[in-house]
This record gives sequence, C-alpha cells and structure tokens, in this order.
Amino acid sequence: MSDALQRYLDDNRDRFVDDLKQALRIPSISAKPEHKGDVERCARHVADELRRVGMTVAEVIPTDGHPIVYAEWLGAPGKPTVLLYGHYDVQPPEPLELWKSPPFEPTMADGTIRARGACDDKGQVYMHIKAVESHLRVNGKLPVNLKMVIEGEEEVGSVSLEAFLRKNADRVRADVLVVSDTSMLDPGQPALCYGLRGILYTEVMLRATRRDLHSGEFGGSVPNAANALAALIAALKDGDGRITIPGFYDRVRSLEPKEREHLRALPFDAKAFLSEAGVVGDVGEKGYTTLERLWTRPTLDVNGIWGGYTAAGSKTVIPAVAQAKISMRLVPDQDPEELFPRFEAYVKKLAPPGAEVTVKDMHGCKPFLVSPEHPSIKAAQRALQRAWGKPAVLIREGGSVPVMHTFSEILGLPCVLMGFGLHDDQVHAPNEKFSLSSFHGGTRSAAYLYEELAVSTG
Amino acid sequence: MSDALQRYLDDNRDRFVDDLKQALRIPSISAKPEHKGDVERCARHVADELRRVGMTVAEVIPTDGHPIVYAEWLGAPGKPTVLLYGHYDVQPPEPLELWKSPPFEPTMADGTIRARGACDDKGQVYMHIKAVESHLRVNGKLPVNLKMVIEGEEEVGSVSLEAFLRKNADRVRADVLVVSDTSMLDPGQPALCYGLRGILYTEVMLRATRRDLHSGEFGGSVPNAANALAALIAALKDGDGRITIPGFYDRVRSLEPKEREHLRALPFDAKAFLSEAGVVGDVGEKGYTTLERLWTRPTLDVNGIWGGYTAAGSKTVIPAVAQAKISMRLVPDQDPEELFPRFEAYVKKLAPPGAEVTVKDMHGCKPFLVSPEHPSIKAAQRALQRAWGKPAVLIREGGSVPVMHTFSEILGLPCVLMGFGLHDDQVHAPNEKFSLSSFHGGTRSAAYLYEELAVSTG
Repeated sequence: MSDALQRYLDDNRDRFVDDLKQALRIPSISAKPEHKGDVERCARHVADELRRVGMTVAEVIPTDGHPIVYAEWLGAPGKPTVLLYGHYDVQPPEPLELWKSPPFEPTMADGTIRARGACDDKGQVYMHIKAVESHLRVNGKLPVNLKMVIEGEEEVGSVSLEAFLRKNADRVRADVLVVSDTSMLDPGQPALCYGLRGILYTEVMLRATRRDLHSGEFGGSVPNAANALAALIAALKDGDGRITIPGFYDRVRSLEPKEREHLRALPFDAKAFLSEAGVVGDVGEKGYTTLERLWTRPTLDVNGIWGGYTAAGSKTVIPAVAQAKISMRLVPDQDPEELFPRFEAYVKKLAPPGAEVTVKDMHGCKPFLVSPEHPSIKAAQRALQRAWGKPAVLIREGGSVPVMHTFSEILGLPCVLMGFGLHDDQVHAPNEKFSLSSFHGGTRSAAYLYEELAVSTG
Repeated sequence: MSDALQRYLDDNRDRFVDDLKQALRIPSISAKPEHKGDVERCARHVADELRRVGMTVAEVIPTDGHPIVYAEWLGAPGKPTVLLYGHYDVQPPEPLELWKSPPFEPTMADGTIRARGACDDKGQVYMHIKAVESHLRVNGKLPVNLKMVIEGEEEVGSVSLEAFLRKNADRVRADVLVVSDTSMLDPGQPALCYGLRGILYTEVMLRATRRDLHSGEFGGSVPNAANALAALIAALKDGDGRITIPGFYDRVRSLEPKEREHLRALPFDAKAFLSEAGVVGDVGEKGYTTLERLWTRPTLDVNGIWGGYTAAGSKTVIPAVAQAKISMRLVPDQDPEELFPRFEAYVKKLAPPGAEVTVKDMHGCKPFLVSPEHPSIKAAQRALQRAWGKPAVLIREGGSVPVMHTFSEILGLPCVLMGFGLHDDQVHAPNEKFSLSSFHGGTRSAAYLYEELAVSTG
C-alpha cells in the first residue's frame, strides 16, 4: 500500500464518519411496511454515494420486496473479480425508550458512533465504500475488479435476493465473495469467520376459544390461549436445555475433537462476555462450553410473545388468542426446510385438544461452513495482519448471514467473512454502536484486502 | 303495581333505551389514565340523570381515584331504606378490530343494544334509574327510601369505595343492599345470586438479562425472559388443572352434598354454554361439573402476556424482560391478602437462577356467600315471579362484585343480587351487548322489587 493511500485514509477519517452518519439518518427498517419509502430512499442514497466515490455502475434495482443496490468497477482486466455483499436495511429500533439518543440521529460517544445500523451493517458497508474511494482517488484504480450487491432485506430473510442472483448470475459472476457483517473476538483482535449458524424463524398463533371471555363468567371451565401457549413453549425444551422437537438433532454434526481444541484455545473470556449481558452463572445446553453453545449448537428462542390485555391496569379477560415469534438457530447440517414441518407438527401436537394452531414459516436459512485453508482466507489473513499488526484468529459465529448459503450454492464462490463488530455493539438492541477503531481499522483492512486478493485469487 | 305504572313503563320503553344510549356514548374506561376526563364526564352525566328523574340528592363526590355518584330519595318515612350499588365505569374495549360497530356508538341489532358497558353495568344501572323515574312520575313517590352509590372504579378493583363507605357510614346506612351486576341463567329465566367468587389480580415481571440480546450472537448461552416466563406459567398448574401454589386450596370449602344436588338440578345446559364460546369437550379441574368449576372452584388465568418483539415481521431478539397479568378467582374462604405473598414467593421460586422477578398486587377481593333464606331474597323472588311470570332460580356466579364483601362487612347489610345479563353478552369482550328483553324486564323487576321490599324488610 502506498504512502499516499495511507495518508488519504488518515486525512479523511472525520469525513468518512460524516458520510456514514448521512446513511444512518435514514430509518431503513425493512420489517415495517410503513418504512417502505425510507428503505427505498436509503437504497438511492447508497447508490448515489457509490457513484460519487467512482464506481462506474451503481443502480437501484427493484425487486418484489425492497430494492437491491448493484454497483461495479471493472477496470482491472486480468485481475480477479471480487463480489462484495452487504445490506443497507436495519432492525426495528424498539424499545425506543431505552435509547440514550434517538436511533436515527447518529451520536458520538466514547469513541463510538451510536445509531441503529451503525455496526449492522451500514457501518461495515461504508468501510468498503471508503476503501474504494481511497484507492480510486489516490491511484485512479482498484487492485481488483469489484462488484457490489447491497440488499435491503437482510433483516427480513433476504427474500428477494436468491431470485435476483439467479436472474443476474452472469452479471454478478466473480472469483471470491467478501462479506463484512460479522464480529471481532475482542477489540483490537481481528478475526476471520469460517462458519455461521442458520435459522428457522416462525410465528405461532394459538386460538383456544371463539372469542375473548370474561374470567369470572367462564374461568375454570374453558381453555386459556395464553396459558396454553405458555405450556406449549415450556414443553419445547427439556430440563437439560435440549430442544424436544422430534428429529431436531438428527443432522447436527458432532464437534470434532480438533475443532473443540481450537475453540478452547481461543482468547475468549466467557465470563466477561456473559456478565456484560447481565448473565450470572452457566446457562445453556448441558455438556458444552459457552463458545460451543454459541457457535456449534442449535437453539430455540421466543423472540416475542403477546396475547390478552397488555395495556395499563387490569382486565379480567381470558384471551381467545395468544401468539409468539419463535426462532431456532441451526448448525451444519440442519435444514430449515426440513425442520419447519417437524416443528409445525410438534407444536400442533403440544396444543390442547380443540385449540386451533397455525404456524407460519417467516424465513429460514441454512447454516454455513467453509474450509479455513482456502487461498482467499489466507489473503484476508495477510490483509488483517498488515492492518492491525497482529494475526487474525479463525472463528465461527452464532448469527446468520442469510445469503451465505445462497451465494456459495448459486455462484459457487469461496467466501471471506471479515467483520469488525464487537460483542457489546448492541446489534438488534437499543443503543447499537460501532467503535471508530473498528470503522477505521476495517476501512484500512478492506483497502489491504483488495490488494492481497489481487495476488492470491483468480 | 298500578296500571298507570305499568302503562308508563310500556309507553316509555324507546326513550329509556335512548337515555341509556347517551350514557353508553361516554368512554368511561377506568383502567386507562387517558380516559380520566371521560370517567368524570360520565359521573356528571349519571348524576344529572338521577336529578332529572327526581332523586332529591345527586352528587358527584371526588375520591383519590375516579368519583362516586351518590344519590338519595328519602320521602318514605317508616319504610325500609334500600341501598342500590352499581358502577358507571367500563372495561377497556380492546381489541378494537373485532367490534362489529364502534364500542362507544351504541348500535341496535337483533333485539339487543351493542356497546361497551351495555350490560356491565350501565344498562343494569339504568334499569333502576328508569324504575325510579316511573314510580316518581306516576305516583310522585317511591315505595321505599332509596340511596344509590354508583362508582367509577369497579373494573379496577373499587380502590376508593371502602374509604368512601367508612367515611360516609351514617349517610349510606340502609336496611338492604341491591346490586344488579350479575346474570340470568338463560333468556327468560330470572335468577337471584347468593354467592360470588373473589379475585386476586397480579402482574408479574421477569427480567432475565440486562438488555435485549441478539439471538445469533448470544443464543444458546443466555436465559430468555419469554421462555422463562412461559415455563413459570406452565408450572402454575398440574396435569389435572389443579393450581400448584403451596397452600392455595387450604381454605377452600368443600362442596356440601346438598348444594351439589341443587346445582346439578339447575336448568343449565353446560354443552350449549361452552359451545357458544367455541369450547369443545370437557375442560377444567378434574372431578367437577362445569357449573361447579364456574361457581365453587378457584381458578388461575393469564389475562395478558407480552415480551420481546410483537410488531409485524421478524426480529431476532432475545427479550430481556417478559411480563404477564395473572389473576386467580377465589372461593370461600380464600383470602387474597393471605394468598398474594404465597403466590409471590412461589413465582420467585419458579424463576430461573439469576432472574429478577417482581410481582405486583393489582387488586383483590374476598369471595361472597349469603343465605338464600333471607327475607329480602324472598322479596326479590316475589318481584321476579311477578315481572317474568315464573319463579327465579337461586344461583351462584363465578365473577366478583369486588365490593360485596366490603358492603356486607362494613355496613352489615343483607344483599340482593338481581342481575339480568346473559352468558353471550360478551361482557369484557368485543361486541358487548344487552338484550332489550333483559333491559325492559329488569326495569319492571326493579320497580316491583321496591314494592316487595317495602313489605318484607325493615
């Protein structure tokens, strides 16, 4: 990397942050229909920014859902082509009252930038945009050919992406996929991720009676939807934290001793990780360490539950209907399409006689696992060593990047997961933030990565 | 009863309904702070109406909560004094989308009047107001002295009433209490109620972690407040529908064979009752009939539950907090004050280690039971026989009139519970209604009751 590039990266740090802030001000909440216009506005904003930094193509492409931003710079004939994937949509910000500053008014505090999407994933998309800007402004070119697919539906299951990729398979053809939507193990400790969990996200509705009933008039002789749903949820796990859905563990790969050793040797402070979240003691499936539970074991969590009277005061009602959003994180080789009907059948079986149960498949994605020995991973390791002055650690993650499986299956691409989030970044929670050291270190790493991939791949 | 009185009752039926509609248009929802002004407006409206029909005193008396309407007509020296109790506040109307017409726009349909409060309790209060109007317009006097206490906090536990009664013990002194806030057994089958269940209404909050967490980042190694609350609720009952709170049944009177026989002989069609509510099969505590479960056995119901993300779409959050409103209907001789600390301790014991649980006592009232042999019950039986042309049946009810215990304890009064609701009146649910035959039959019954109590009591 030239001194001029390094100087450009240093000199423009504050403006890079200002440019990111502009994107963070747009409430591109993909889950909420009332924000459809904001999501589209954000897509246009990102495309404008990509044109501004010098991408030769930057289009907002409509889909059946939210639009996809597609960009390219193909001025390096003979060099490998890198496909960058990211997303400009964000999670809903609720509960709003817990935010220290409004979620869509980016606020600087303690060396971090606080806003919904700061880390997940606008901040990490902008690292790449700013790395591109730096190369193009300083050198007039990139070390590799670059294509970008920045979608607006990651937080709602990337429903339109697969069709887009299949339809545009020629256009998005590349030699390697790069994604920055994962985390570092610790501040200052860069990481490369070789595995992700999948997910199956469902919504369960249980109707116990035709209508809400008065608890005085009917109580004792009728089923209660909220009590029944609670009992149903309680039955989904046993006393050891194992999920009771028949066949749920059938395809779960058991952990190889070699990987178990690798995970145990990682510089991960489980106690600190848990206590930051307010967790005391050892929680989770018996027989596994915290890191094994997080990265290599499936889960079942209620993400939301509601039914009956939930406003202030008291109402003596027996709710007719109760509902829950229930999701499962999956590990290789579990398959959400195979598990959904099993979950559905089991939930219906657990419901009391006479209850009407509907189970909705909200979205799903397969787990993802690659070999850490691939040349593009090695290139990323070199880039991170140069950017951070220390070797990257190889990690898995417990989250899902819903499209990883799609990318590797449809496009057959090797994947580099190079992310810079931190565990206390409050991703999906109030007060999401992104540390400036991650943002600037990530921008530097992206700039190096393009150089290293020019050598390694293709 | 004179022919003139009978004629007045007949000639003014439509206007009686119109007058009731005016009261039903006021959304006097006592549970919701934002309706405080409406509650007060309704109190003034009822007091104005009482003055208009000829009560000599009709005052809106402020309390620490919502005001109490107090009225009197004492122009029958030497005759007994009747105290009428009712309430002008209503339950919240939610869920609004299930109403066939707006809850505070009274709508006539199929011989009923549909609105929140139509049956519970504005419609039944207006039966008495119209009986009073009829006597005073036709005869210039009532057969008895009459005092009325119409409160605005019945649906939130009558929190201010006890202090009011203690403070005004001389003023509200009477020979018999009359309440119309209960039901008939069937349309056209009048009933007198000699027992009510009590209640203990609580709110439980369970906090499992310091903040909401991302299910990908933390799932598998942290507790989930919604899963934990579901498990806790599930554990509150055993497989036979028995409540597991230690000591919960200690004071429950077992059913005497004689009363069991009486209940089994009542013309009650359990199957029809349940199927109207959409219930199939036999539900509830083992070893009891439907009517025994409804009237003589305690219950535990979740009235509301909420936690995590409950809006449209999906959010992969592990909720830090989940909450539920949980209430228990009580039977003689259970005592909510004694049971609350037992419930609280048990709930805390059921929560997972490290969770923070708070249990709030929202309100409670003791169960109520009187002898059906009292002379004022006999008087009411005569009144109902005259009004409906058939004998009234003696029943208990599963609901609570929170103040019955207060009245009988503080004022030492015999109580007549003469109500005209029907089981499908959707009390506390969407599309609450009151049948016109109940309203007019009830007005007739009230007019007769004053005559019969003039003979029987004092």
